[in-house]
Amino acid sequence: MSDESTTVQYLKGVVEQFVEEREWSGRLQPKDLTLGLEIEVAEIAEHFHFKDDEEIEEELGDAQKRRAIGYEIADVLYYLLALSSRLGIDISQTFLEKMDQTEQQLPVYLARRQVSKLNRMAAG
Amino acid sequence: MSDESTTVQYLKGVVEQFVEEREWSGRLQPKDLTLGLEIEVAEIAEHFHFKDDEEIEEELGDAQKRRAIGYEIADVLYYLLALSSRLGIDISQTFLEKMDQTEQQLPVYLARRQVSKLNRMAAG
Amino acid sequence: MSDESTTVQYLKGVVEQFVEEREWSGRLQPKDLTLGLEIEVAEIAEHFHFKDDEEIEEELGDAQKRRAIGYEIADVLYYLLALSSRLGIDISQTFLEKMDQTEQQLPVYLARRQVSKLNRMAAG
Amino acid sequence: MSDESTTVQYLKGVVEQFVEEREWSGRLQPKDLTLGLEIEVAEIAEHFHFKDDEEIEEELGDAQKRRAIGYEIADVLYYLLALSSRLGIDISQTFLEKMDQTEQQLPVYLARRQVSKLNRMAAG
Repeated sequence: MSDESTTVQYLKGVVEQFVEEREWSGRLQPKDLTLGLEIEVAEIAEHFHFKDDEEIEEELGDAQKRRAIGYEIADVLYYLLALSSRLGIDISQTFLEKMDQTEQQLPVYLARRQVSKLNRMAAG
Repeated sequence: MSDESTTVQYLKGVVEQFVEEREWSGRLQPKDLTLGLEIEVAEIAEHFHFKDDEEIEEELGDAQKRRAIGYEIADVLYYLLALSSRLGIDISQTFLEKMDQTEQQLPVYLARRQVSKLNRMAAG
Repeated sequence: MSDESTTVQYLKGVVEQFVEEREWSGRLQPKDLTLGLEIEVAEIAEHFHFKDDEEIEEELGDAQKRRAIGYEIADVLYYLLALSSRLGIDISQTFLEKMDQTEQQLPVYLARRQVSKLNRMAAG
Repeated sequence: MSDESTTVQYLKGVVEQFVEEREWSGRLQPKDLTLGLEIEVAEIAEHFHFKDDEEIEEELGDAQKRRAIGYEIADVLYYLLALSSRLGIDISQTFLEKMDQTEQQLPVYLARRQVSKLNRMAAG
């Protein structure tokens, strides 16, 4: 299975089944799912901590390390899907709506102008 | 569009196009994407901070607040997809592999035993 | 040594000496110190994750667990002092200024009114 | 008042008085104080997000921005002191104990060896 062929609902279903089989539903409070997000994001952060961009790039060249970081990303996704299920949120629809809003707030021409300003600043 | 009909790749494509149109690719370092995850998770946390489970449940009954939380979840997903693209990670495949591992580490019978122990403790 | 007898500068000095002896000064960028804060806060969060208030209270009755949480708090303090040193910030002066502002924004009479409203809501 | 002249207990006392005056004690659960830490660390992170080390250095040259970051650091300290009070932890004693342990785990000669290895790697 791959990102090409997998729907968001399929992944949500995997999380929901995992939770139901373990009879955890009653214990999955939104606050704890949010703490879970924080804890797992910090696990990603540990891979990059005190490394500069080149050191990180080198680390990402190592398939095993990329795999380990991928598993931390998966853990964040787990809590994100569990929270969306718990709150009855259609994550795709909400995401696409939010992206539309962001597109309007930061249209391409404006974003490019900011980037070229930053690049000019960087060039001195 | 809904979770039922949307593939993970479609959402990834939306993020990739958004980034490319704005010519941001060079600026999207993994460390910054991770900071972005942290910042957006904290935005979710603000909705639940200093509220107990009942107060949160009440808040979730309000469609506008649920929508606002949904947009924060969307922001976390944005960074998660951007980081996966940046690292060349197939998030669905990695997620399903990780869930398989977790299933083996915490099989259903063991998880249920833990829950019933916690429930007995809670019952005093 | 105790909180009664220890100045903030003394603790800052301990961090500064630790860093200088290890010749780390050049590597302590503000972004990494902030990631360090996030990572260590998540270590505190792990102690409370998926526990309700009563379970946490019980855990805090165990001197060893309280000690373990104390060490995580110490790790957060380490990064907070290191960041303050790095930025040349007098943390006590800044803290007391900020508390003054907060006192004015949320005076006692207003805060109590909020609390009693919340309590009435909780009482139904 | 300055870091030179201010004891940790003095700062703790300010937080305790602030909390008691507002009759908040019953609402300050450890999990919420930890969420507060996370939220405030993210506020620091926002100042550094998508900026490279030079851009951050430039920002830190601006007294107003340094002040703003200082206030975010103060907010983290607030929750750290509140959590320590709530848990009955002497933060100075715990911090110095933890630093002693870290010194033994990572003695100066070993830390310097790591730094020079990293520098050699960086030099190619």
